[in-house]
Amino acid sequence: MNLILCEAHEVGAGGLVILEDGRGAHVRGVLRATPGDTVRIGIIDGPKGQGEILAIDGTRVDLRCRFDSRAPDRPTVDLLLAVPRPKVLKRLWAQLAALGVGRIILTNASRVERPYFDTHVLETTTYRPLLIEGLQQAGDTRLPLVSIHRQFRILIEDELTAASHDELRLVAHPDGGRSAIACASESDHRRALLAIGPEGGWNPFELDLLRQRGFETIGLGSRILRTDTACIALLAMLHEVSRRRGDSDRTR
Amino acid sequence: MNLILCEAHEVGAGGLVILEDGRGAHVRGVLRATPGDTVRIGIIDGPKGQGEILAIDGTRVDLRCRFDSRAPDRPTVDLLLAVPRPKVLKRLWAQLAALGVGRIILTNASRVERPYFDTHVLETTTYRPLLIEGLQQAGDTRLPLVSIHRQFRILIEDELTAASHDELRLVAHPDGGRSAIACASESDHRRALLAIGPEGGWNPFELDLLRQRGFETIGLGSRILRTDTACIALLAMLHEVSRRRGDSDRTR
Repeated sequence: MNLILCEAHEVGAGGLVILEDGRGAHVRGVLRATPGDTVRIGIIDGPKGQGEILAIDGTRVDLRCRFDSRAPDRPTVDLLLAVPRPKVLKRLWAQLAALGVGRIILTNASRVERPYFDTHVLETTTYRPLLIEGLQQAGDTRLPLVSIHRQFRILIEDELTAASHDELRLVAHPDGGRSAIACASESDHRRALLAIGPEGGWNPFELDLLRQRGFETIGLGSRILRTDTACIALLAMLHEVSRRRGDSDRTR
Repeated sequence: MNLILCEAHEVGAGGLVILEDGRGAHVRGVLRATPGDTVRIGIIDGPKGQGEILAIDGTRVDLRCRFDSRAPDRPTVDLLLAVPRPKVLKRLWAQLAALGVGRIILTNASRVERPYFDTHVLETTTYRPLLIEGLQQAGDTRLPLVSIHRQFRILIEDELTAASHDELRLVAHPDGGRSAIACASESDHRRALLAIGPEGGWNPFELDLLRQRGFETIGLGSRILRTDTACIALLAMLHEVSRRRGDSDRTR
């Protein structure tokens, strides 16, 4: 936990925050903080700041917090993901939030098995704490926006905004040819939307529909990776390319 | 399982291979193969090929296999990794093999906790099947070479080969500055060695020793990632840069 996150309603008058759950235990047991120390704290979807420890005992930690004037920007990469196996998705939530994703758009696809939609891994009460865990790891406050779509065609044809020059759209496909790094480096997009299919890949109809909506096919070489490995690999690459571009903008 | 792997000693006269364990169950239950069908099969650290199904029943699958003349090349990226928490390492083995790593050099570091060395996750009988699982996912046969080192200083000072122009050496460090993609793209190395520290990072002495041995510091931006997420992200980037370079070499 590199940043403690709290809900906006937990912040009382004068910036007072009381931690009584695992976050309090973390301050006591891992940070071994004592009154007068400060810890990094942020408000979910709000600003980050510092909390000064006023009091600490076996059950609660009282903090007086000051927050920055504004919240961090929302990550500039979104993910369109065919619902993976529940076990894989459960592991993935925290990692997606840690890597930084603006929106997580979960969709059905012909090779997604029906029972995948009926698991608790797709319930807010399961995934929200996992996303927060990832944010606390990465030091961010921006909770990814999650939506779940049972009809791929309606999602892509009706609900997805029209392709725009501003948004780079990439679809990962085995032996998909071009590299994500090359595609992202050559474009001057502000945002990216990355589509990753089910184990076994998108079917030809789905791939065609995605291409019609402006998605360019990318691959990761000849090795076939698990969904979660591919997600992490590709999200990290897109972030890294945009970080490099930010660096070169600043030095211009 | 995108490639079935067998041990060299399992291949009998005329290329006969008999599968009686989970691999046989995979051929029956997932591939739903019948006599006359062919499946992709490879020999660990040997060539890949095709196996024709001769007979199949509830307990065994008999294959007649033909293998390519040579084994795939060993991956050109090696990993020097401070031993992570057992739970994290257990998850990581298959993913490392799937991404492709020539050598996995596990080391102690000041922020590695002692008990991490005394777990079954570091035993060959635990990690070898997990590595094979990753190879079967990725479709490779090259088992990463694993070594475990309890003394960081002896490893780096005495056992690591001298830095050479042929090998790009990178050490990941929070806020480490340069991007792995930039470093790898600018170098004309044949191999890369990537060092990833414990949660909490390398200490200043360790970082200094690595730099003396030719490691350049890289970072992944301001977000702090878990060891396994950082491993996957950085290995994928190094592979992708070398794939892009391979592509441009071929088109020259």
